[in-house]
Amino acid sequence: MPNDILLYWKERGAREFLRDLRGCRVLATYVIGSTRTSTVPGVSAAGPTPEATLYTPALDVEYLLTGRAISMDVIPVTPEGVPTPAIITRAVLKLAGFPHLIVDSGSYLEPKVPHVRLPSKVVGGLISECRALPEGYASRLLKESRLLGRTAVKGADLLVIGESLPGGTTTALGILAGLGYEAWGLVSGSGPKNPHPLKERVVREGLRKLPKELRGDPMKVVECLGDPLHVSMAGLVEGALESGTKVILAGGTQMAAVLALLKSLNVNLSGNLVVGTTRWVAEDNTSDIVKLVKLVSESTPVVAVDLNFSSSRFEGLRYYERGYVKEGVGAGGTAVAAVVSRGIKVGDIVEAVEEEYHSLVGRGDLLG
Amino acid sequence: MPNDILLYWKERGAREFLRDLRGCRVLATYVIGSTRTSTVPGVSAAGPTPEATLYTPALDVEYLLTGRAISMDVIPVTPEGVPTPAIITRAVLKLAGFPHLIVDSGSYLEPKVPHVRLPSKVVGGLISECRALPEGYASRLLKESRLLGRTAVKGADLLVIGESLPGGTTTALGILAGLGYEAWGLVSGSGPKNPHPLKERVVREGLRKLPKELRGDPMKVVECLGDPLHVSMAGLVEGALESGTKVILAGGTQMAAVLALLKSLNVNLSGNLVVGTTRWVAEDNTSDIVKLVKLVSESTPVVAVDLNFSSSRFEGLRYYERGYVKEGVGAGGTAVAAVVSRGIKVGDIVEAVEEEYHSLVGRGDLLG
Repeated sequence: MPNDILLYWKERGAREFLRDLRGCRVLATYVIGSTRTSTVPGVSAAGPTPEATLYTPALDVEYLLTGRAISMDVIPVTPEGVPTPAIITRAVLKLAGFPHLIVDSGSYLEPKVPHVRLPSKVVGGLISECRALPEGYASRLLKESRLLGRTAVKGADLLVIGESLPGGTTTALGILAGLGYEAWGLVSGSGPKNPHPLKERVVREGLRKLPKELRGDPMKVVECLGDPLHVSMAGLVEGALESGTKVILAGGTQMAAVLALLKSLNVNLSGNLVVGTTRWVAEDNTSDIVKLVKLVSESTPVVAVDLNFSSSRFEGLRYYERGYVKEGVGAGGTAVAAVVSRGIKVGDIVEAVEEEYHSLVGRGDLLG
Repeated sequence: MPNDILLYWKERGAREFLRDLRGCRVLATYVIGSTRTSTVPGVSAAGPTPEATLYTPALDVEYLLTGRAISMDVIPVTPEGVPTPAIITRAVLKLAGFPHLIVDSGSYLEPKVPHVRLPSKVVGGLISECRALPEGYASRLLKESRLLGRTAVKGADLLVIGESLPGGTTTALGILAGLGYEAWGLVSGSGPKNPHPLKERVVREGLRKLPKELRGDPMKVVECLGDPLHVSMAGLVEGALESGTKVILAGGTQMAAVLALLKSLNVNLSGNLVVGTTRWVAEDNTSDIVKLVKLVSESTPVVAVDLNFSSSRFEGLRYYERGYVKEGVGAGGTAVAAVVSRGIKVGDIVEAVEEEYHSLVGRGDLLG
């Protein structure tokens, strides 16, 4: 096992899973979606204003594929110069050469780059109102993404699946709560201060509106307290596993919601799937990914890439070491796949990220 | 070389190309699009009425991925029971297990299965009015599909690229004429009677409206006399070739239009690409694919799969031997790839097609 990979949970299972991936055929997918829950002030930091978080997924994948946001003339960094995590994913994809696909499960803005459209794509509603999705859409998105997994992923040894959904830790908490998990206080957030009380309030408000007899029913829970993305990730994973493809769930604490959905759908995960994230998530003081994964799917390993920006020459990147952003757009899991399957070094990833950052912010105005 | 593959042009180049494909990693893509040119009575037989041809591409790929048309409650066969060529593609994909993707360049109806959307997707206009695409859309579709080729196809050894576009031989003739090729009377059609005079009249009417100085300009020609699909195929091929992937252009005489666009874009094709079609196209008396390919790209091999339905127990399939349908949805080239890369026998393909046909038309009402 390369030193660049950190094993946080189920070390033996993780080693066995990762051992077989050397030189394997990888397909990387990035699912995007929106939920109006991200516009509740304070829920999401993934945008300059609460409303603007609706645009972030499209801008993220436009940047991922082309090096710039197309739909709006913006640079995907905060005023402090902290860049989107897609900068890591983009740098890694360049180094590793993985084929990759964007999947739109319900982005508010349609990205101006080629992307797979799920026909039932829909922007999620407010989960505090128990109106995450229109009736029937959870199972439609599940079926459609499962079909995508069965047809497009076939032949790949490994599927890396990442996401961009502002408000995602809150809707993930919603899904977990609706399925009966005591996940309060365990999900992560995109800033150093994690607004647990707000997330819990939003979820509990919606949960009260979900009839007791529907709790535990995965499709009803998603339609009340979820969003279009997590259920679509679950379907894509299910379709891929059916084709004999292994899976890295490339994300942070939200991946527990995907695991919970897969479990409620009786999908056999043992040996075929790990959660792959960043050290910033795994060692986050405001959340507990290992506890959360144990709670939901005891045997699923949690691994992370040992990326460290503390010596970066760019202040915007050094912010990652202070709890900003942490993860997203499959950054951690994509890097895990690159290290394990292509032997890429973390040092080379950091260098490539710095180059991306440099070309992103131009010739110096935002440089630290 | 398996006996099941027929070499019609540039035999040596074809052998070299096909030799290396044994066991290779294949990605199959099916591009769909619509043009209002297909609604000109007599131009296209790919639908029960001229207007209905606008629905065919979406229904074709819905059937391809799920075994049934979803958007409309129809069985994709003519009243005589002649099935869509997607029946061959579906049977072959099942046998070969190729991963596959639908790409929408401008389908009138959005297919209700997951598909890659090109952001500038647009239904093509009447080429007789020199209004194939809005200004700027040819290069936008080219860039978007090229980006898809660069990102999604990476890592595949072979890209199979098929199409569904009713009216496609007419718009292909338009592109060829606009680029200065004397292709009159050489394109194929989907029935035993090929309406060459009508196709020529439609194209010449549009051609007269294209200013002389714009003839030969590929993007202007596509915007006047083309459609959204052929230029998107060209972009996808270009992006794939850049990644070192070989290409089977899976279609009939229309593929000459793709070749012509690639040539005008200075894409190096030698050794990297063949046209793969069916025997029904290659031996069609009403068209001449070899002459057409020679005219455009002298060194590009033409190969076909030796599929024969003359002994089929279904009359609907036997119609293929009388000049009906012939090709479409990448049927021939997908079968070529399956035979060469997976060692699948043509006899097994025929059997699988018969099974598909049986489940398509039910328990007997349309059986021959």
